[in-house]
Amino acid sequence: MGAPVSTGLLEAAVYVEDLDATEAFYGGLLGLERLTRRDGRHVFFRCGEGVILTFIAEATRVPSDDASALPVPPHGAIGPGHVCLAAKAEEMNEWERHLRENNVEIEADFFWPNGARSIYLRDPAGNSVEIADKTLWRRG
Amino acid sequence: MGAPVSTGLLEAAVYVEDLDATEAFYGGLLGLERLTRRDGRHVFFRCGEGVILTFIAEATRVPSDDASALPVPPHGAIGPGHVCLAAKAEEMNEWERHLRENNVEIEADFFWPNGARSIYLRDPAGNSVEIADKTLWRRG
Repeated sequence: MGAPVSTGLLEAAVYVEDLDATEAFYGGLLGLERLTRRDGRHVFFRCGEGVILTFIAEATRVPSDDASALPVPPHGAIGPGHVCLAAKAEEMNEWERHLRENNVEIEADFFWPNGARSIYLRDPAGNSVEIADKTLWRRG
Repeated sequence: MGAPVSTGLLEAAVYVEDLDATEAFYGGLLGLERLTRRDGRHVFFRCGEGVILTFIAEATRVPSDDASALPVPPHGAIGPGHVCLAAKAEEMNEWERHLRENNVEIEADFFWPNGARSIYLRDPAGNSVEIADKTLWRRG
């Protein structure tokens, strides 16, 4: 029998160094709601129906304090990861203006062959963060 | 002025080693539709409205062949990352059965304090893959 059908992406994870800087970026600059923070370990942000998890890798490579009740498996990567936030096509110009107004360096800004636009920036830990027209992967 | 509002997670990325094994896992075992593959570099899978990107980090740390037309910024992490697929609450038992029928090792399987269940397994590269009741992060 085949697998049940996943309804979508629930969480994406990136690894960071400084949780205050991470909050300023994802919560402040990108305007995402902070869901929860554990100092020294993680801060999570709501993004539509999904959640962006930002972790300090050294802390998530070991079992958490409450591992007996919540045995969350360890993980933790080093080096720049990637995450992409969906945006309304008609708001891509507004995203660009918002980033420019905040003196954020835009690393790339282009249109894919199907006409969808992507804007790329870096979070404070160096992860590649993309803001893309949500039609980017839509079926043709 | 505040940031525009992202409509959700569009992409989550993990780094892998063997694209065939990766396809067997995400496409075969987890039943996700393969969107595109570039041998030696990446394979992408549709997951609801989002996309799971799997990359060979050594290949994505350098500019891609068509960087002049599509200047996708480099990224690439080493070590186990994390991604979570949303599932219908009433299908969590079916996910468990499906994984067991396929002799997949379930690393963890528990209920969060709010009653949502998560099942964790590893992809062939060692990334922590979670299948979670999609109500996990729902507002109370």
